[in-house]
Amino acid sequence: MKLETKLDKMTGSDKLYPKARPLLLKRNSRILGTGSGVPDEVITNQDIIDEFGLLATDRAVQFSLGISERRRGPHTEKVSYYLTRAAKESLSRAGILPEKIDRIIYSRLFGEHLIPANSLEVIKRLGLKTGIPVMDISAACSGFMHALELGLACINTGDDYVLILGGDRSAISSQAAVSIDTRTIFLNGDGFAAALLGPSDENNFKASYFYTDSSIGDFATIPFGSALLNSSENLEDNMFNLDMPNGQNIHKSVLDSCRIISNRLFDASGLSIDDIDFFITSDQTAHVWRDQVKLLGLTEDQSVSCFHKYGNTVAAMAPLNLHEAIITDKLKRGMQVLMMAHGAGASGGGFIFTY
Amino acid sequence: MKLETKLDKMTGSDKLYPKARPLLLKRNSRILGTGSGVPDEVITNQDIIDEFGLLATDRAVQFSLGISERRRGPHTEKVSYYLTRAAKESLSRAGILPEKIDRIIYSRLFGEHLIPANSLEVIKRLGLKTGIPVMDISAACSGFMHALELGLACINTGDDYVLILGGDRSAISSQAAVSIDTRTIFLNGDGFAAALLGPSDENNFKASYFYTDSSIGDFATIPFGSALLNSSENLEDNMFNLDMPNGQNIHKSVLDSCRIISNRLFDASGLSIDDIDFFITSDQTAHVWRDQVKLLGLTEDQSVSCFHKYGNTVAAMAPLNLHEAIITDKLKRGMQVLMMAHGAGASGGGFIFTY
Repeated sequence: MKLETKLDKMTGSDKLYPKARPLLLKRNSRILGTGSGVPDEVITNQDIIDEFGLLATDRAVQFSLGISERRRGPHTEKVSYYLTRAAKESLSRAGILPEKIDRIIYSRLFGEHLIPANSLEVIKRLGLKTGIPVMDISAACSGFMHALELGLACINTGDDYVLILGGDRSAISSQAAVSIDTRTIFLNGDGFAAALLGPSDENNFKASYFYTDSSIGDFATIPFGSALLNSSENLEDNMFNLDMPNGQNIHKSVLDSCRIISNRLFDASGLSIDDIDFFITSDQTAHVWRDQVKLLGLTEDQSVSCFHKYGNTVAAMAPLNLHEAIITDKLKRGMQVLMMAHGAGASGGGFIFTY
Repeated sequence: MKLETKLDKMTGSDKLYPKARPLLLKRNSRILGTGSGVPDEVITNQDIIDEFGLLATDRAVQFSLGISERRRGPHTEKVSYYLTRAAKESLSRAGILPEKIDRIIYSRLFGEHLIPANSLEVIKRLGLKTGIPVMDISAACSGFMHALELGLACINTGDDYVLILGGDRSAISSQAAVSIDTRTIFLNGDGFAAALLGPSDENNFKASYFYTDSSIGDFATIPFGSALLNSSENLEDNMFNLDMPNGQNIHKSVLDSCRIISNRLFDASGLSIDDIDFFITSDQTAHVWRDQVKLLGLTEDQSVSCFHKYGNTVAAMAPLNLHEAIITDKLKRGMQVLMMAHGAGASGGGFIFTY
């Protein structure tokens, strides 16, 4: 069964999407272990209402977004602390010693700093003696998928073990210098995730597909960057602020993205939705998770969403859902997985793989 | 001839460096064209002395750093404008239409913004109709090398043409909210570069090598990132400021990095310095460029440095030197190239390839 293809386009977009192409892997990979690095500190909707003095109720927030709570670590704790926590869990679940890692690719939002690459601190915290190559990458909420794709490519060119990290601080706090946007203040949480890729004799990754859509790049933006040089006003007010002028557009674009990525992955792999056992995606709200599951004709127990407890954790959403599915034993070895993530429609991509 | 190996370590480092490993490429790549996107606006040392009211002379700055001028574009012009200029030149020199590009990897410092990925704007400016995948990566001054390595890996897994972009705004301006550090204020310039990778029937890339060194990660830092959440004081003063407490350490670490990368690349390729026709590197100062050339036993006309006219352009340094060597006809097709870049010793890497 193929999904409806007439909407092979984003709502509001004038772009064509790249064709699916075969994934030419000579050396195959496998996800050996996953890990979570969410902070222990739980922030409820009521906590946010109180902290910012908002006119809102927990009940209304739960109803409109489907979120009950999110995590927010103290600012004195570094990004690398949480990344290392996620990394250690993925290594321990894989049964692989940290010394085996050949490379770390971290998909960040802000990161702890711009220079040097953030995983240098992870190397220190893991106690590695060898200075393996690391880099930061960034592609909004779909960043972890891009990092996974690069990990597959690096194993294909000779690496054995590649540690993929993702996520960042994105919970809004009154301590940070941000203006308050009541449409987005409840959405985000701090979250960090890891996946360890290793070599495999089997062709687990059947297809990969990635696109971007510049015509809807303004659906969600964070100005933090050289844009700030234009105006010192921006510095304090909006630098960390996610600007998402129209939530309904994002909802639609995520569903469009889900449809396009799925169809392209089916084209590239020769598989169909009937071959898929489990579905992992980015869940920007509880509603957009449910609507993706419905769109694919799957049941909710064939997928998992942590949005209600973690919120939008940017690049960590999809891998935290993957980790949750694995530790709750819903996703088992041998299952065929459709995994993807959506960057507000402006970027997206994913895989079909055998877990 | 192999270089002295007893110093197979960074000054001040306690790290081992990864062994060289073979680059397993089934589909080979070639650098088809390069491009430069430096702003037209030239800022002399005297301009900076006047702008910031410094007690310095042009002559003293030229003597200590080897820089005469750098470029600095107006803040109203976007990062993507300069990236697109570099991209167009690389495409035109390669004789490849923009529509052929399968992917863009941009190695940034700040970028224009955090979300979405910065090359979405490049797609728009190039007038592309297809939403090809793009991402930002970051690994300080060695970022372009990492991006090139990923480009090779992506062509190996099925892409045909990958556009590699790098560089950023890094010239310091009194308009931006920064504190003044007279040790670094003359060093940086705005610079942007491009290289178009395409498929090749020949095995041009003989070896690649990458490392990081977390034990000297504090040689050069930019706090811009979540670190800012700790303190609103930091916001205005230091966010864009490169903190480089000890320039002499960086000088040493770049030379160490040059020695280690070269030796590892010779190990992996079975080649020696006698096989190398041309040398491209990151030139954080004019002195550190000369000392790298000397270390390798090469002559200055076997390499090129734009430091005197562009300054430190972060990820763009090495590719701007590559471009300069090509357009001045010093680097010719068929020559064997040793190319590398150093991120203040904390990250580094490069290649041996036939141009």
